[in-house]
Amino acid sequence: MATAKRQFVYFFGDGTAEGRGDMKDLLGGKGAGLAEMTNLKLPVPAGFTITTEVCQEYYKNNKSYSAAVKDQVAESLKRLEKTTGKKLGDENDPLLVSVRSGAPISMPGMMETILNLGLTDVSVEGLAKKTANRRFALDAYRRFIMMYGSTAMEIPRELFDKIFNDIRETKTRARLEREADKKIDDSEMNEPELEAVISKFKVLYRKQLGEDFPQDPIKQLWGAISAVFNSWEAEKAVTYRKISNIVGISGTAVNVMQMVFGNKGDTSGTGVCFTRHPNSGENTFYGDYLINAQGEDVVAGIRTPMPLDKFAKVDKKSYDALKDIRKILETHYKDMQDMEFTVEEGKLYMLQCRTGKRAPSAAFKIAVDMVDEGLIDKATAVSRISSKDIEGVFYNTLEKNNPDLKAAYWFSGIDAVPGAACGKICFSPNKVRETVENKERAILVRHETSPEDVAGMFAAEGILTSTGGKTSHAAVVARGWGKCCIVGAETLIIDYEKGECRNGDYVLKEGDYITLDGNTGSVYRGEFPLTKPKLGKAYNTLMKWVDEIRQIKVYANADNPLDAKNARDLGAEGIGLCRTEHMFFNNAQGKEDPRRILALRKMIIAKDTEGREKALKAILPIQTKDFEGIFKAMDGYPVTIRLIDPPLHEFLPHTDEGLRSLGDDLQMPVGEIKERVAQLAEANPMLGHRGCRLLVTYPEILRMQVTAIISAACNMQKKGIKVHPEIMIPLVIDGKEFAQLEAQVREVAEKIIKDKGVPVKYLVGTMIETPRAALQAGKIAEKAEFFSFGTNDLTQMTLGVSRDDATKFLPVYVDETKAAVFVADPFQTIDVVGVGELVKHAVERGRKEKSDLLIGVCGEHGGDLPSVKFFCTAGLNYVSASPFRVPIARLAAAQAEIESKKAGDGVKTTPKAKSKK
Amino acid sequence: MATAKRQFVYFFGDGTAEGRGDMKDLLGGKGAGLAEMTNLKLPVPAGFTITTEVCQEYYKNNKSYSAAVKDQVAESLKRLEKTTGKKLGDENDPLLVSVRSGAPISMPGMMETILNLGLTDVSVEGLAKKTANRRFALDAYRRFIMMYGSTAMEIPRELFDKIFNDIRETKTRARLEREADKKIDDSEMNEPELEAVISKFKVLYRKQLGEDFPQDPIKQLWGAISAVFNSWEAEKAVTYRKISNIVGISGTAVNVMQMVFGNKGDTSGTGVCFTRHPNSGENTFYGDYLINAQGEDVVAGIRTPMPLDKFAKVDKKSYDALKDIRKILETHYKDMQDMEFTVEEGKLYMLQCRTGKRAPSAAFKIAVDMVDEGLIDKATAVSRISSKDIEGVFYNTLEKNNPDLKAAYWFSGIDAVPGAACGKICFSPNKVRETVENKERAILVRHETSPEDVAGMFAAEGILTSTGGKTSHAAVVARGWGKCCIVGAETLIIDYEKGECRNGDYVLKEGDYITLDGNTGSVYRGEFPLTKPKLGKAYNTLMKWVDEIRQIKVYANADNPLDAKNARDLGAEGIGLCRTEHMFFNNAQGKEDPRRILALRKMIIAKDTEGREKALKAILPIQTKDFEGIFKAMDGYPVTIRLIDPPLHEFLPHTDEGLRSLGDDLQMPVGEIKERVAQLAEANPMLGHRGCRLLVTYPEILRMQVTAIISAACNMQKKGIKVHPEIMIPLVIDGKEFAQLEAQVREVAEKIIKDKGVPVKYLVGTMIETPRAALQAGKIAEKAEFFSFGTNDLTQMTLGVSRDDATKFLPVYVDETKAAVFVADPFQTIDVVGVGELVKHAVERGRKEKSDLLIGVCGEHGGDLPSVKFFCTAGLNYVSASPFRVPIARLAAAQAEIESKKAGDGVKTTPKAKSKK
Repeated sequence: MATAKRQFVYFFGDGTAEGRGDMKDLLGGKGAGLAEMTNLKLPVPAGFTITTEVCQEYYKNNKSYSAAVKDQVAESLKRLEKTTGKKLGDENDPLLVSVRSGAPISMPGMMETILNLGLTDVSVEGLAKKTANRRFALDAYRRFIMMYGSTAMEIPRELFDKIFNDIRETKTRARLEREADKKIDDSEMNEPELEAVISKFKVLYRKQLGEDFPQDPIKQLWGAISAVFNSWEAEKAVTYRKISNIVGISGTAVNVMQMVFGNKGDTSGTGVCFTRHPNSGENTFYGDYLINAQGEDVVAGIRTPMPLDKFAKVDKKSYDALKDIRKILETHYKDMQDMEFTVEEGKLYMLQCRTGKRAPSAAFKIAVDMVDEGLIDKATAVSRISSKDIEGVFYNTLEKNNPDLKAAYWFSGIDAVPGAACGKICFSPNKVRETVENKERAILVRHETSPEDVAGMFAAEGILTSTGGKTSHAAVVARGWGKCCIVGAETLIIDYEKGECRNGDYVLKEGDYITLDGNTGSVYRGEFPLTKPKLGKAYNTLMKWVDEIRQIKVYANADNPLDAKNARDLGAEGIGLCRTEHMFFNNAQGKEDPRRILALRKMIIAKDTEGREKALKAILPIQTKDFEGIFKAMDGYPVTIRLIDPPLHEFLPHTDEGLRSLGDDLQMPVGEIKERVAQLAEANPMLGHRGCRLLVTYPEILRMQVTAIISAACNMQKKGIKVHPEIMIPLVIDGKEFAQLEAQVREVAEKIIKDKGVPVKYLVGTMIETPRAALQAGKIAEKAEFFSFGTNDLTQMTLGVSRDDATKFLPVYVDETKAAVFVADPFQTIDVVGVGELVKHAVERGRKEKSDLLIGVCGEHGGDLPSVKFFCTAGLNYVSASPFRVPIARLAAAQAEIESKKAGDGVKTTPKAKSKK
Repeated sequence: MATAKRQFVYFFGDGTAEGRGDMKDLLGGKGAGLAEMTNLKLPVPAGFTITTEVCQEYYKNNKSYSAAVKDQVAESLKRLEKTTGKKLGDENDPLLVSVRSGAPISMPGMMETILNLGLTDVSVEGLAKKTANRRFALDAYRRFIMMYGSTAMEIPRELFDKIFNDIRETKTRARLEREADKKIDDSEMNEPELEAVISKFKVLYRKQLGEDFPQDPIKQLWGAISAVFNSWEAEKAVTYRKISNIVGISGTAVNVMQMVFGNKGDTSGTGVCFTRHPNSGENTFYGDYLINAQGEDVVAGIRTPMPLDKFAKVDKKSYDALKDIRKILETHYKDMQDMEFTVEEGKLYMLQCRTGKRAPSAAFKIAVDMVDEGLIDKATAVSRISSKDIEGVFYNTLEKNNPDLKAAYWFSGIDAVPGAACGKICFSPNKVRETVENKERAILVRHETSPEDVAGMFAAEGILTSTGGKTSHAAVVARGWGKCCIVGAETLIIDYEKGECRNGDYVLKEGDYITLDGNTGSVYRGEFPLTKPKLGKAYNTLMKWVDEIRQIKVYANADNPLDAKNARDLGAEGIGLCRTEHMFFNNAQGKEDPRRILALRKMIIAKDTEGREKALKAILPIQTKDFEGIFKAMDGYPVTIRLIDPPLHEFLPHTDEGLRSLGDDLQMPVGEIKERVAQLAEANPMLGHRGCRLLVTYPEILRMQVTAIISAACNMQKKGIKVHPEIMIPLVIDGKEFAQLEAQVREVAEKIIKDKGVPVKYLVGTMIETPRAALQAGKIAEKAEFFSFGTNDLTQMTLGVSRDDATKFLPVYVDETKAAVFVADPFQTIDVVGVGELVKHAVERGRKEKSDLLIGVCGEHGGDLPSVKFFCTAGLNYVSASPFRVPIARLAAAQAEIESKKAGDGVKTTPKAKSKK
């Protein structure tokens, strides 16, 4: 049988290991690290690792083990006994082991550790004899029973604590009668007391489980191994995998290792250290050491550990040994390491070693330093940066060590956009405006936001909503601006009328201060200082490398000169999406402008072409001026301008008050306005009269918009600005449709160019955002000079899922424990097998028709790392993201290039595109 | 040059023709017919045909002719002069010609005919001399000037008429002073009077066009030819092509032919005849003959022509010759022919011959008779039937010859569903119910209909709405029932409050009778008798052949036992779509049942699983009973049952009154109900929480529905009924999603089967109605036993077009004169290049995974002829249509088979599917 030959258990000890550091998938991170350290001849206690495959088998075989597994474990145990010269359960010198879980990816929520396994009523006396310290042995035994009982057998931990505390309390009370003010420490419990604890623990164990605490160490061992495997499917672990989007790993490994004791007196101790400073990234040795303690004492946080420099003074020999190991491991792993170690009676043991977590700015610093030190190359440095690192160096942060912060914690919502924000609660956009006009900061707090709130959202420091998910209106809009946003805070009850909001016992009023932490979704009562981001030298160096490596260009979505400037500052090489409809609302600074809205509404309310043309005439000079500003900001870079896209009813007020006020403004009876609003209403606006369908039915809008774009381009080119307008037609479904509109665009444009005598070059292209457009891309490419994937709409239509309505069911589809259809929210990370296939179709067909077709993407996905990687392999020329996500997109593009080079297949060479830099 | 070699003009005469009858594309229908008749040695006046390619060139070359065309026309004219021995414009014996348009497809709206071309001030005297009849010559000249001036040069015809009438009036007045009561007939105008007319016509011509009436016959000829070509793009012609959905033909031909005169006295005449009776289809010679007349006199309808049997008595020689020709042509063309002929002084000439139009029942009769006569084979007979023919024999009709009908004509709307209906105007479903309870017929008249009106729509004889298009709610629902429906009657003003409706001068009140003609969209005031359809023997014979020929099965969409029975009667071989949600509204007869609705609403309003389960329990026995009825009606045939599909809010009332009443029924405060309704509201319900997403989030609905289906199947199977339930899951987007639901369905089903001990066999499959499902069809087919394309939704999502909102722009997309993106409404005829590609993908991928996968379609397209043809070539096993469209689907399936056999590629052999007959 094949299974007989498979290796299920990997031994390590005596300076060699059967496993290796690159066997993480099989041995888990911990097991691989122990194997590697053993091979590096570092002082690692001997032991063995049971592979992740056994975990899979365990679940497949209805929670049982094959004979092969059982045999191999028994064999390894024998080998361990031989190596250590001790026997499990021995009455004189028993072998004690720790049992630890270790998945391929570090994963909280699983059973962590059982220490001192192997102790029984018999062997505890052996340990007592051997160590000549019966109190130590009894203490180890009571710890083991509790850990085994609670962690492996799921007896509530409190029940153990209560027994222990009751006995300690009795002793404490007795002492307090003598000496005031001194509680009994655990270490002061004497042998009889510990014996009493052990005895009561065993009674508890029997009561809870209906069987005795196992006196057979082999039974203990298998109990602990199964407990580790069981914890793989524990709710906490599953939840963690889900929220961390961990998929594709099949189980955890189990590490069984000889115990070493850091709690054998003052020459013993235990510690954790990093090879470089995890916060600053400086190349200094950083860590903590706790004398006379086991790992769990460090975690418990009762005693304060000493920093490493103090450790150097206390135990120079061990410190020097550790320092040498630091050097060996960094040289070996070529990355900053996080190590756990124990000193047992003056001898150093390494218990764990893994890549160390680091703060965002430290990530840049370490990566760049290591390149300078010759440890790694630039590509490796770039690969080590994550999108979270970039977000981390850009957004405001809260000072976490602030002691007041914890007390001011109020509740948590969904962390939609990272960063921190602080300001006065405002329940309406108007209140935001008022607050900002008073030179104060505002936080917009609402049930949910709608397009009418956009100006208020823009002016606020942060946004908090009680409903919605990561793709709700508030989240999407705020993300575009990089503005701190927390959504779906379901426990928050907002009462607009009373002007207050309540959560739990606290009620805050409009005008009270709150502080949002968008990284965690936490909301705090009151005002807290924010740390402004500083882009260090390391950031700039690394991003320079990113730009050297990547092939695909990165544009930004920007609708006004201010955003355009921001985008350029963040490294955008063009504008991939300028939404002209935003210009109808906002001025050049992105602030709401009532005159513009009124002119637009006049156009919409008009009953005929003539009325519309008249209203459009008023909009024309404003829009021309906007485009001039954008061209100026993007001097020398392409600006992709999308003609009007949303259905017209989106621009009209929907409240009675709004309608009345519009009636007053337009001097029209409100009844007529209501009628027009009713006429424009749609059952499914997403699939309605919008995009180029508006241009087909109201060609006068096309004429006005093209006039504004080309006039502005001519005016600016005359002034010496290098303009590259690219006019983009949205929601196309057919080549013929596109060709007709393209002809109209050219007719208008050519006339202006001729009249003005300025030979502006421009492109006419299309969004690919309907499935039909993707399928008909070849026909569309006959006339289109560029494609830009609108992956938001393409996702909505391909999946038949309205983003606005998806909150009721999409979470279930992403939930790994439920439907698990998608590995990530398809509106955040592109659905490669569905939507992605259409993207690939369209690229292939478009380029077959026109080999130099310029192709980009301008949906939300343009700023998402895995999505950008997909777009690179699909052969796109550029991705366009909201300005604040431009650096992430640049990074993703570089990483995609690196990955594909590694894979050896090479990112598809993007053909030389028409768009000019 | 290649053009030099091309033949642009085809001569016919002297018993041979350069063209042939199968050259319709090049010569047009008329030209091909004339060539073919000439080759058959029939007496056709000589002439030549200028090809449709010249029409294309004419438009391409900015309305001018190449030298080649000019040369070939001149050459052909010379040949014609030689053949006839006459010369154009000759002062002694001039050649006169007619110039006629003739497109490949008969097409009203184009310039029809100019007669007597070649007459000038000089040649008119030649004609006078030659015929020894100057009055005849002058009359011919004045007719020619008028025809040329009005038809070719677009001078308003009335201006010519006025001149002629004025002169006739003067003469009439003069006569009336002498003899009472006798108006002057055209033929009584004498030479001086005709000279005066001619003179005034020429003055008018000069005034209108700024140039003299051409005295050069060659100029006349080219003027007439250009006039024909110009008329190809005339608005009327373009409109006709659009409404008749004529595409892919590129122009009209021009026929120039020697004039023959039916107006040379009593031995002359002109007529039209059919080789068989066009109304009854009987094999009898049928037609009209008018003595001493030209074609235009027949059309004008001033004089009453004689039937053919009388013609036989008047001019036996000509009649016998015509009768022989009838036989020759039918034998030659093997189809009923429509012929035009002229007798000039006792000699018969054939002027035109084409396939004759016939009434629907005649179409069946003629096709079947011709098979019996050995003229054609069965496949040919089947090919000759159109979907309109089937509709024509099924639906009620109005007696068109009823003289009162014309006077009662009120207005026209869009002909959404054919047939005729008559009843009392009812403005509400309640009024319909009341009227029907009084045993009277009702017509539901509304602005538009909504799902809440469905019961009223069902009970009414016909439906009339003032808004909406062919795919509006009213149209779609009515089409499903084959119920006469006229929509979009925009001129109709309905006042619900006053209980009246107005159009033009007429106001009708609720309760007044109206009559609808769904074939034309005409609405008549008052009550008119309807002719009930009779399915003749020929229909049954032909449909038997249809079923012999077709490979694909035809199912029906039916939601209750009554519809199921209808479907079987109309030839359905299964139910392809049973919409369980309709069962929530309607009882077994398809009539609204308030108890059902209430139970369902209870379920929807419930806040938790428990509440829903309780409400579902009440629905279970009702739904079980419904399924029992359906299984019984479909004994031995498959029944495909779709689990709940629409979003839940569709089932709730939307008016305040409805909400209040629901509150009363459920004993809940209306506020709570409103809140729940608001919670359920969606921005884009089409892409929202519906279909299997409801089953994923509320598995209790799945359990109830599967329980009802399988329980009913078991109960019926026990009674000896052969049940074939096929459970269909809607709106699937992923294989994993489907697999999870499939497992749930099987779990519930297997338990019932086990409990009841009845081994019912069932299938579990899915709708393919999202683009993603089509793309992921391979994965879905891993578990799915059948696919059914929901092409309605698939079209909506692929195109990004909401059917409900499409009326504002889709017409433009279908309009050939505007965007012309689609050749037909994509919701009526499948969009082959877009949606069709996804269908083909899905079939291919599904069958690759599971070669015997059963695949059908159940969208609206299942009853559309060109769509069914597409589905046949795509390899589907069945199409499912509304019961009334089942015969059309059967025909389409047979025709697709015939066409593909002809094309030699063969319809893809559909693999042996699991579904049993």
